[in-house]
Amino acid sequence: MKKKNYLLAVCISGLCSLQEGHAQPKQLEGFSPVSSQRQIELEQKFDQLLQSRSIGANIKELSAEPHHLGSPGGKRVAESILKKFKEYGWDAKIETYHVLFPTPKTRVLELTEPTRFSATLKELAVPEDATSGQEGQLPTYVAWSADGDVTGDLVYVNFGLPEDYKQLEQLNIDVKGKIVIARYGHSWRGIKPKVAYEHGAIGCIIYSDPNEDGYFQGDEYPKGAFKNEYTVQRGSVMDMVVYPGDPLTPGAGSTEKAKRLSREEAITILKIPVLPISYHDALPLLSALTGPVAPQKWRGALPITYKVGGNGNAKVHLKTEFNWDIVPAYDVIAKIKGSEFPDEWIIRGNHHDAWVNGAADPISGQASLLEEAKAIGQLVKSGYKPKRTLVYAAWDGEEQSLLGSTEWAEDHQNELNQKAVAYINTDGNSRGFLGAEGSHAFESFVTEIAKDVKDPQTGSSVFERRQAAEAVRAATPKLKKEALSKDDYSLGALGTGSDYSAFLQHLGIPTLSFGFGGEGSGGEYHSIYDSYDNFVRFKDPGFIYGVALSQVVGRSVLRLASADVLPFDFRILQKTVSNYLQEVTRLTDQLREENVIENQLVAAKSYQLAADPQKTFIAPKEKEVVPALDFSNLEIALDSLQKSANTLYELQEKLDVVSDKKKEKLNTALFQSEKQLLIPNGLPRRPWYKHAIYAPGFYTGYGVKTLPGIREAIEEGHWQEAREQITIVAEAVNRLNVALNSAIQIARNIQ
Amino acid sequence: MKKKNYLLAVCISGLCSLQEGHAQPKQLEGFSPVSSQRQIELEQKFDQLLQSRSIGANIKELSAEPHHLGSPGGKRVAESILKKFKEYGWDAKIETYHVLFPTPKTRVLELTEPTRFSATLKELAVPEDATSGQEGQLPTYVAWSADGDVTGDLVYVNFGLPEDYKQLEQLNIDVKGKIVIARYGHSWRGIKPKVAYEHGAIGCIIYSDPNEDGYFQGDEYPKGAFKNEYTVQRGSVMDMVVYPGDPLTPGAGSTEKAKRLSREEAITILKIPVLPISYHDALPLLSALTGPVAPQKWRGALPITYKVGGNGNAKVHLKTEFNWDIVPAYDVIAKIKGSEFPDEWIIRGNHHDAWVNGAADPISGQASLLEEAKAIGQLVKSGYKPKRTLVYAAWDGEEQSLLGSTEWAEDHQNELNQKAVAYINTDGNSRGFLGAEGSHAFESFVTEIAKDVKDPQTGSSVFERRQAAEAVRAATPKLKKEALSKDDYSLGALGTGSDYSAFLQHLGIPTLSFGFGGEGSGGEYHSIYDSYDNFVRFKDPGFIYGVALSQVVGRSVLRLASADVLPFDFRILQKTVSNYLQEVTRLTDQLREENVIENQLVAAKSYQLAADPQKTFIAPKEKEVVPALDFSNLEIALDSLQKSANTLYELQEKLDVVSDKKKEKLNTALFQSEKQLLIPNGLPRRPWYKHAIYAPGFYTGYGVKTLPGIREAIEEGHWQEAREQITIVAEAVNRLNVALNSAIQIARNIQ
Repeated sequence: MKKKNYLLAVCISGLCSLQEGHAQPKQLEGFSPVSSQRQIELEQKFDQLLQSRSIGANIKELSAEPHHLGSPGGKRVAESILKKFKEYGWDAKIETYHVLFPTPKTRVLELTEPTRFSATLKELAVPEDATSGQEGQLPTYVAWSADGDVTGDLVYVNFGLPEDYKQLEQLNIDVKGKIVIARYGHSWRGIKPKVAYEHGAIGCIIYSDPNEDGYFQGDEYPKGAFKNEYTVQRGSVMDMVVYPGDPLTPGAGSTEKAKRLSREEAITILKIPVLPISYHDALPLLSALTGPVAPQKWRGALPITYKVGGNGNAKVHLKTEFNWDIVPAYDVIAKIKGSEFPDEWIIRGNHHDAWVNGAADPISGQASLLEEAKAIGQLVKSGYKPKRTLVYAAWDGEEQSLLGSTEWAEDHQNELNQKAVAYINTDGNSRGFLGAEGSHAFESFVTEIAKDVKDPQTGSSVFERRQAAEAVRAATPKLKKEALSKDDYSLGALGTGSDYSAFLQHLGIPTLSFGFGGEGSGGEYHSIYDSYDNFVRFKDPGFIYGVALSQVVGRSVLRLASADVLPFDFRILQKTVSNYLQEVTRLTDQLREENVIENQLVAAKSYQLAADPQKTFIAPKEKEVVPALDFSNLEIALDSLQKSANTLYELQEKLDVVSDKKKEKLNTALFQSEKQLLIPNGLPRRPWYKHAIYAPGFYTGYGVKTLPGIREAIEEGHWQEAREQITIVAEAVNRLNVALNSAIQIARNIQ
Repeated sequence: MKKKNYLLAVCISGLCSLQEGHAQPKQLEGFSPVSSQRQIELEQKFDQLLQSRSIGANIKELSAEPHHLGSPGGKRVAESILKKFKEYGWDAKIETYHVLFPTPKTRVLELTEPTRFSATLKELAVPEDATSGQEGQLPTYVAWSADGDVTGDLVYVNFGLPEDYKQLEQLNIDVKGKIVIARYGHSWRGIKPKVAYEHGAIGCIIYSDPNEDGYFQGDEYPKGAFKNEYTVQRGSVMDMVVYPGDPLTPGAGSTEKAKRLSREEAITILKIPVLPISYHDALPLLSALTGPVAPQKWRGALPITYKVGGNGNAKVHLKTEFNWDIVPAYDVIAKIKGSEFPDEWIIRGNHHDAWVNGAADPISGQASLLEEAKAIGQLVKSGYKPKRTLVYAAWDGEEQSLLGSTEWAEDHQNELNQKAVAYINTDGNSRGFLGAEGSHAFESFVTEIAKDVKDPQTGSSVFERRQAAEAVRAATPKLKKEALSKDDYSLGALGTGSDYSAFLQHLGIPTLSFGFGGEGSGGEYHSIYDSYDNFVRFKDPGFIYGVALSQVVGRSVLRLASADVLPFDFRILQKTVSNYLQEVTRLTDQLREENVIENQLVAAKSYQLAADPQKTFIAPKEKEVVPALDFSNLEIALDSLQKSANTLYELQEKLDVVSDKKKEKLNTALFQSEKQLLIPNGLPRRPWYKHAIYAPGFYTGYGVKTLPGIREAIEEGHWQEAREQITIVAEAVNRLNVALNSAIQIARNIQ
C-alpha cells in the first residue's frame, strides 16, 4: 500500500527526523507506522549479517564438481545444503522424487555428402579453468531428444521458428524427411526441434553461432567470456510449454509409487533425435550447403556465405540413444514456523542442480538463498519471530525442465492451495540491473524494495539504476521521457524457464522472480565453463550482486512474513490486464489491416513483380479475412474489477493498525484472490497451464504470452477459439472480482 | 501534362480503337493529339532499331582493356566512340581538357606493432575472368589522397562518419595523431578521410568488409559475384562536396591555357594519405587491435572480435606518393541540330572512362547511349527531324570526380545557360528495377515513360514492377497501401556521384538520371573484376536491361526534342519542396524535443547510472537548446508558387495545339524557370553548389540533402545560418514564382 504522511507518527529509529519540520517517518507497504519502524530495523540487522565472502565461499564449494540430477555430485550438493540449513537453525529435510532422466549412450553426427566429416561433440578443458577437465561431466547433448538413427538432406532453418519456415516456403524448400540445423537464440531451444518436427523434419541439430554468444560479441573463453570454437550449450528440449516436470507424472508428484505414463504416452518427450553442437562442428555442415543464399537476417558470424541447402547436395547422419533411467531428485526443504500464522507460507526457491558445475546457473542464486537463510537463522536466534511460516527450497532437476519444483508443487498442491501466500524465485545471478517479474498485484511492493536496496557499484538505488538504463535505451524521446518520469518499477510478466511455473501457472500462487544482470554476459551457459573461475572473472567479481540479491529477496520474504496487511495492490493488476487487452485488440486490428493489404498485393501480383525472376520464389497465398472480435464482456469485467480493486485498496490502507488476529481472514482473502484467475480446464491443448493471464508461449518457449488463450488464438487465426477464450478470461476476471468483493466485505466488518 | 480524354480525337495509328466505344487515343504529355500519335509511331520505330546484341558487342569492345583517364586505352575508347557517332550520322568531335590526375608512385602499408605484416595491395587475376590479368591496370589506390609517410597508432572507426566519432568520444578514444581504418559503406568513400582529418587523424585506410559486398552477401568471385579476399575498391576521395571537377580550375573549364590554382590552394585535395585495401590486408590489422569491443553495429563479417584500438598496442606505417600529372581528358560530343529550335539543347551523357575495364561502370550505360545514338541516326536518315538540338556526350575522367563533364559544363556555361533545356544522365546499368532521379517538375513526364516501357523480364511496365517492389518492401500496411495506390513514379532527388552535378547543381539545368538495378549486385565495383565476363554472368545477361535503358532514355530525349509544350509540371516541384520543408520543420522540432530530454538525462546522471562501471564511458555533455525557427517566409513563398504553378499548368494543357513558333517564348520560359532556384552566392562554405533544393550532403557525399542550406545548418546546429538560409531559399522560390508568372503572361498572350 501507498506510503502515508504521518506527520505526527511515532519515530522509533533514527530514520525520521521530525525536528526538521518536513521529514516523514518511512512507512512500508502493509505495515503500520510502528511495525514499519520495527521492520526497517530488522532489515538493517539482516543486511549487516550478509557477507559477500560467505556467498563466494558457497559458490566455490557448491560448484566444485559436476552436480547434475542423479549424479553423486548432485547428491553431495543437496546434502551439503541440507547441512547448512540445519546449521543455520532451520527445520530442514530432503524430499525425494523419482523422475525420468535421459542421459546419452550414443551420439553420432556426421556429414556424409558431399565430403565426410565427423563432429567432435566434445568441449575442451583449458588450464585457465580449474574444473573444466573434471570427471563426471555430462556429455554435450539435450535431454528429451528421441532415440533415433537418421540420415538425410540438411537444411539450414535460421532460428527454427515458425516464421523461418514461412520464408523457406517462399524459397520452395521444405524440410519433410530432412534434417534441419538451427542456430541457438530468439526462442527457447525446445521450440526448434518441436517446430522442425511439425514441419516433417526427421532430425534437428542446434548450434551456437558466434554471432549470438561467440567472438562476434567478445573475446573467446578463456581470453574473454564468450563461447570458443568447441563450447556447446546443453539443455532440455522437453515440450515444456505443454507441461513441465517429469513427463511421466503430469499433474501429480512423482513419488516412488506414483502412477506413471509410459514414455510413449508422454507427449512432452520429443519424437525426433536432436543434438546441440559447437561452431567447430557446425562449420563443415553449413559450408557444405548450397542452394539459395540465406535471407539477410539469417546470416551469422561464421566466415561463409550462409545458404539454405535442402537440395540434396549435403547429407548428414544423426544418431542418438539414451539411458532412460528413473533417478532420485533431491529437493531440500527448510522451514521456520510462523509465530502467528503458521499456515500462511512464504516460499522462496532456487535450484541446486546444474548441467555441469553451474557456478552461475544455479549456484550464484543458491548462494544468495543460503546467505538469506543464514541471516534469518541468526535473526531468529536473537529473538526475531516471523509471523508467517518461511519455506526455503533448493530444487533438484530444474535443468531437465523444472522437475524438482514441479513434482514438489504437484505433490503438495492441496496444502499449497490452502497455505501459499507467495512464491519467490531466483536462479543464476550476475552483475548489473535488477530484473523482476511476477504477479502484478506485487508491483508497488517490488518498487518499494527496489528503492530501498542500493546498487553495489554506483551507490544509487537499484530502482534508479534500472530506470536510468530504461530511459537511456528507450527508442524515442517520448519513451525516454516516460521512463524518466516513472515512479514505479515495471514488473515483467513471467513465461517459464525457472522453478516458478508450477506455483504460478499451475496453482495460481502469487509469484515473484528476481535476478541481477546485463553486465556479465558471456557464453558459458550450460557448458563446462560455467565455473567458479569464470564467475569471479566475468559475472560478479566480489559477489557484491550476490549480496544485493539477498537484500532484495530477503526484504521480500521478511516483509511478506510480517506485513500487517499483505501488500497486494489489485489496482495495478487490473491496469496491467487492461493494457494486455488493449494489446490483443490492437493485434487483431493490425492483423486485419495487414491481411487486407496483403491480399491486395496478392491480387495485384505484386509479390511476383517484386521478385527476382532468376531466383525461385513462391508468392504468398491469399490470407484469411480477420473477423470482428467482441471483447466487450472482458472489458466490462475489467471495469468492475477496477471499482472493486480501488475500494479494496482504500480499505487496506486504513487497516494496518487493526490487530493481527482480526485481519487474518482479510489477509487470507487477499492472498487467495489471485487463484481465481486460474481457468479450471486450463489453456487449449495444454490443460496443465491454468493461469488466464500468464503462460509461456506455445511457439516462444520461455518467452511469456500474456492473456495466452486469447493472444495465441488470434496469432494462430483460430477465431472461434479466440471468442471462447475472451469469455473464459472474462469469467476468470469476474471470479477475481467476486473474491475482491468478499475481501471488501471482510475489511468493512473489521473496521 | 496530364493525358486528356479526347473521345472523338483523330486516331492515326492503331493505338486507339474507337470502335470499341470506350477506348481513347493515347496522348503524351506536351503533345497535341496529332503530334502525339506521330511521336508514338516514331518511338515504335526507335524501339525496333534497338538491338541487345549490338549493346553486348559494344560493352565487350569498350571494356576490352583498361581505359582510365589519361591512359592509351582511354584514348582508344574515346576515339572509338567518336567513330561510332560519326558512323551513326552525328556531328561529333572530341573536346579535350587538361586536368590534374594523381597516379601512384609509392604505396606502402605495414603493421609494425605488435607483429609485422606488409599489406599486399594487389588484386588477383583469375582464369574465369579473361581481362583480370591485363597490363595497364591502375594499382589499387584512391585518387586525391595526399602524399604522405606516417606511422601511428591504429584506430577502427567503423564507417568513419561523424556519429562514429561521437561514439569513440564516449569510449574516451580520440584519433589525434593516429591512423584510422574505416570500412567501406554508409557514406561516399571521400567522407571517411575528410572526417578523419577533421578529427586530427594523420592517415586513413579504407577496407572492404565482407559484410558489405563480400561473402556475407554471396559467393566470392569468381564462384559468385561478390568480393573475394583480395578485391579492392578504387575510387576518388576528392572533397567533391565542395566542388567536383579539376581541383585546379573551380568554376572554369580546364582548357590548355586556363588559369590554375597551385595544388596547395586546391582545397578539394586531401591533406592526409589514404589507401583502400582488401579484407586480406585488413584482417591482420583489425586482429591486432585491442581495447574496448566495438559497438554492436560496428562489427562486420570477419571472424574476429572487432575492437576499437587506439591504445598504442597496434601501430601501422602508411606511405603514399603520387605522380601529379596534367593529363588530357577526352569528352566526345555529338550533335544533331534541331530543325525548329536549334538553340534549345537536349543533352544526354554517360562517361566512358573506367577505373580498370569498367564493363558495368560505365560501359553498360555508354553502350545504351550509343544504341540510342545509332537508332536516332537511323531515324534521321529515314526522315525524322528533331525540333530541338540533341547533344550526346561521352565524358572522360568521371571516376576522378566528374572531371570531363564538369570542365565541359564550366567551359560552356554561357551557352548552356542560354540553350540547355535538360540534361539526362546514365552510368553503370544492371538488372532489375528502374531508378530515376532528378528535377521534380519532370515527375509526371517520367511516370508516363515508365508506364510506356516494358520490363524485359516480366512483361509488365517498368512502372508496375517498381511500384510492386515498393509496395512489397514498405514497412507498414499504411505505407504498402500508399505505394500500391500511387499513380506517379516518385522521382528521387539527386545528390552527386555521376556527371549530372555541374548541370544541375552548378548551372540549374533541369536534370534526370536513369538506371536499372537491384538484381545484379556484386562486389566488382571499381575493381579488376568489373569485366565483360563478370557482366554477362551477374549483371545483365542478354543485355535486355541495356535495351530497356535505351527505351527509357531514348523516349525522354525524343519527347523533349519534339514536345509541343515542354512537359514541365511545376505543381509537383512545389509539392515536393513543400514536403522537404515539412521534413526540415519536423527535424527542428525533433531535435528540440530530443535535446530537452537528453539534457534531462544528463542532469539526472542517467548515462552514468546506465553505463557499466567496469568499462570506460564518457557521458554526453549537455546539449544546446534548439531555438524556434521561423519558416513562414518560405511557407508564404511556396503558397504563392502553388497558385502560379496551378495556373500555368492549366494554361499549358490548352496550348499544345497552338503553332510551335508562337510557343517558342513560352517553352523558353518553361525550361529557364528552374534556374531561378540557383542561389547567386551558392551554399555556405561551398559556393560552387548553387541549387537551393538539391546538393550532395557535406557529410554524406553522394547522398542528397534537399533544401541543403537549411537542413545542414539545422543538423550542424548553426541556428543563425539556418535563419539566413530560410530567407535565401524563400527568395529563390519567389524568383521561380516571378518566372512562372512571366510564363503565365506569355501563355495568356498566345491563347
